[in-house]
Amino acid sequence: MAYKNINVAVIGAGVVGSSFLKQLAGAKSQISFNLILLSTSKKALISRDYRPLNLESWESDLVKTTEAPLSLDNLLDYLKKSPEPVIFVDNTSNESIANFYPQLVENGISIATPNKKAFSSNLSLWNQLFSGKPSQGLVYHEATVGAGLPIIGPLNDMIQTGDKIQKIEGIFSGSLSFILNTFSSTSPSDHKFSDIVKSAKDLGYTEPDPRDDLNGLDVARKVTILARIAGFKVESPTSFPVHSLIPKPLETVSSGAEYLEKLPDYDQEMENLKQEAAEDNKVLRFVGKVDFPNNTVSVGIEKYDVSHPFASLKGSDNVVSIQTDRYPNPLIIQGAGAGADVTAAGVLADVLKIAQRL
Amino acid sequence: MAYKNINVAVIGAGVVGSSFLKQLAGAKSQISFNLILLSTSKKALISRDYRPLNLESWESDLVKTTEAPLSLDNLLDYLKKSPEPVIFVDNTSNESIANFYPQLVENGISIATPNKKAFSSNLSLWNQLFSGKPSQGLVYHEATVGAGLPIIGPLNDMIQTGDKIQKIEGIFSGSLSFILNTFSSTSPSDHKFSDIVKSAKDLGYTEPDPRDDLNGLDVARKVTILARIAGFKVESPTSFPVHSLIPKPLETVSSGAEYLEKLPDYDQEMENLKQEAAEDNKVLRFVGKVDFPNNTVSVGIEKYDVSHPFASLKGSDNVVSIQTDRYPNPLIIQGAGAGADVTAAGVLADVLKIAQRL
Ligand SMILES: NC(=O)c1ccc[n+]([C@@H]2O[C@H](COP(=O)([O-])OP(=O)(O)OC[C@H]3O[C@@H](n4cnc5c(N)ncnc54)[C@H](OP(=O)(O)O)[C@@H]3O)[C@@H](O)[C@H]2O)c1
Ligand SMILES: NC(=O)c1ccc[n+]([C@@H]2O[C@H](COP(=O)([O-])OP(=O)(O)OC[C@H]3O[C@@H](n4cnc5c(N)ncnc54)[C@H](OP(=O)(O)O)[C@@H]3O)[C@@H](O)[C@H]2O)c1
Repeated sequence: MAYKNINVAVIGAGVVGSSFLKQLAGAKSQISFNLILLSTSKKALISRDYRPLNLESWESDLVKTTEAPLSLDNLLDYLKKSPEPVIFVDNTSNESIANFYPQLVENGISIATPNKKAFSSNLSLWNQLFSGKPSQGLVYHEATVGAGLPIIGPLNDMIQTGDKIQKIEGIFSGSLSFILNTFSSTSPSDHKFSDIVKSAKDLGYTEPDPRDDLNGLDVARKVTILARIAGFKVESPTSFPVHSLIPKPLETVSSGAEYLEKLPDYDQEMENLKQEAAEDNKVLRFVGKVDFPNNTVSVGIEKYDVSHPFASLKGSDNVVSIQTDRYPNPLIIQGAGAGADVTAAGVLADVLKIAQRL
Repeated sequence: MAYKNINVAVIGAGVVGSSFLKQLAGAKSQISFNLILLSTSKKALISRDYRPLNLESWESDLVKTTEAPLSLDNLLDYLKKSPEPVIFVDNTSNESIANFYPQLVENGISIATPNKKAFSSNLSLWNQLFSGKPSQGLVYHEATVGAGLPIIGPLNDMIQTGDKIQKIEGIFSGSLSFILNTFSSTSPSDHKFSDIVKSAKDLGYTEPDPRDDLNGLDVARKVTILARIAGFKVESPTSFPVHSLIPKPLETVSSGAEYLEKLPDYDQEMENLKQEAAEDNKVLRFVGKVDFPNNTVSVGIEKYDVSHPFASLKGSDNVVSIQTDRYPNPLIIQGAGAGADVTAAGVLADVLKIAQRL
């Protein structure tokens, strides 16, 4: 029996968005969630009278509709008039929508999202979203780091209960996890780096142009988010050193295909790095790091002893290690850090938590 | 600036209780928490007019006071008359208090506690606490398993978003973690089992009578809690197989000292077990397990490959591995599973979450 009604507006119905809608339909909660708006970049379903849209038939309804998406201003107007509290779910990676969050929360609309943009851009945007004014909407974004893994929630808990973060260190990219786990394994392997990048692309682990993963920028965005939660005033994801895995001369070649074609020329460099590590009984991992005692944030390749938890990571799993005053032996969380269902579950868990507070 | 006032009644000011009170005084929240009652088994500080007690001087105030604790019925009466919402924090391991929770929640009082008793006793008590009636108080108990580690929250999230648990497996006892990690390590070690138990006791890792840890009952209680959250209807912590680490003839010797004295007679048994595992490149760990496909719950020694995350566990850390439909490669959480500060932080994080919902 529902004792509360919450209206949900969803933007984006791609990989994560469609899984989210499916999970929302089956959520085990005593709160009744009503989908009032669903929009892609081309089309929209809009319940003008705020009565629930059909969560079972949204896919075919979206095909049939001729309605265009609302402009952000019109969207805000529409949401402000909702007779029930609204949660705005942004399942896109769009930057304009992210930049619009402050207007939403200032109008009391809460947000749940896996979209990193708002939280990893300028610090001023972050500060607007977490000013803590009681009248503001709530903003939850667990799925922006490690997908559905419980990272942001527990980190917030540590801060709020007065723990002091010393070091956050983690593997935050599924594709780079796969590539390095395969290349530099605890058991001997002789795959060439370029071959592994190719097969990662073929397996769908990387972006269409693998350089979009190997440049480390996505990891830098995630590290920016964690650093800020921990109290580190990171200006932007380009305000600290990010060591790209792309050989300098290949940064500017025109296509991903050309990059892949020329990558074997640089295999020896990676091989040397790997051998050097192996001589010290270490493996290579691509990590993001926030180091409070040294006052640094960084992203790049690091070496880990074969007995370190990062060394035995499997497949494309993510892992984070959080060392604090209360956890001198760090708290470690690992598991799938990408994928439609785990990401959507992270977003839905946020929606449930927001709804319980509204 | 506080925008909400919450009254907090705390029972127990021991190891966890005193750390909790210290953390409460420094909690980073916009909610104002007022301590209205603090009670041990012998004495109590009670704010009859519900004005906040002094969170800085509770220790000396408690020494000075001559006031006796309230009976549970009088306590309930007192809390019911609070002008602000109340969170009841039970920092004891008392069973009578645990049995009284249903009366508290039925009267709209919420509970945060590290006390396992209410959640690991009869299933009927569990069902009363989680009936889900909207008028009931909320019950949060993250610190009952793995202290402050994020386990119960994330497991609840999985269930509520519609994931299906396949297997939960973990090391839930700090003392047994230390004993087995030292005895059966990935690097060769030749410590005798009985010597390790003795030093664990000397280091304060075990109960005064180490058999209270080695009998596995505490682990059975924790597994009962996780199994129930995952949907397994466990009748009680004695309704499934628990393989004690205490040799049968030593179960009934009259003291912990006598047990320790006679334990060396049984070292060879443990040594054989360890050698057998080592021949398969495995180590011994004391684990609790919930296995849905096989419909079983169990506690006892298991063997793990040296490359398994449980094998490289350090010190007295806890670890849990949760395999689900969405996480076929399990979600793993590890870190300190005992200690005043991490446990108190787990309780305080629950208090904050409850307060946000009230
Ligand atoms: N996939 C994962 O494993 C994963 C993991 C963690 C986090 N995330 C994050 O989750 C978000 C969604 O990822 P995804 O994999 O689902 O992406 P996707 O499959 O590309 O879907 C994006 C959706 O957003 C819509 N969209 C884009 N711009 C829009 C706009 N301006 N207005 C309305 N709709 C717009 C797209 O509509 P059209 O089809 O009309 O363009 C599409 O439906 C991203 O922020 C991503 O970083 C994903
Ligand atoms: N310590 C840990 O690392 C840890 C980790 C996880 C969970 N926990 C759980 O946390 C809880 C507290 O543990 P602890 O280590 O803090 O225990 P503790 O040091 O023994 O403290 C227990 C406190 O409870 C009080 N108490 C006992 N029975 C009472 C009653 N009937 N009425 C009022 N007060 C009563 C005691 O008062 P008196 O001094 O007057 O007897 C004492 O202040 C337990 O449930 C434990 O299982 C502890």
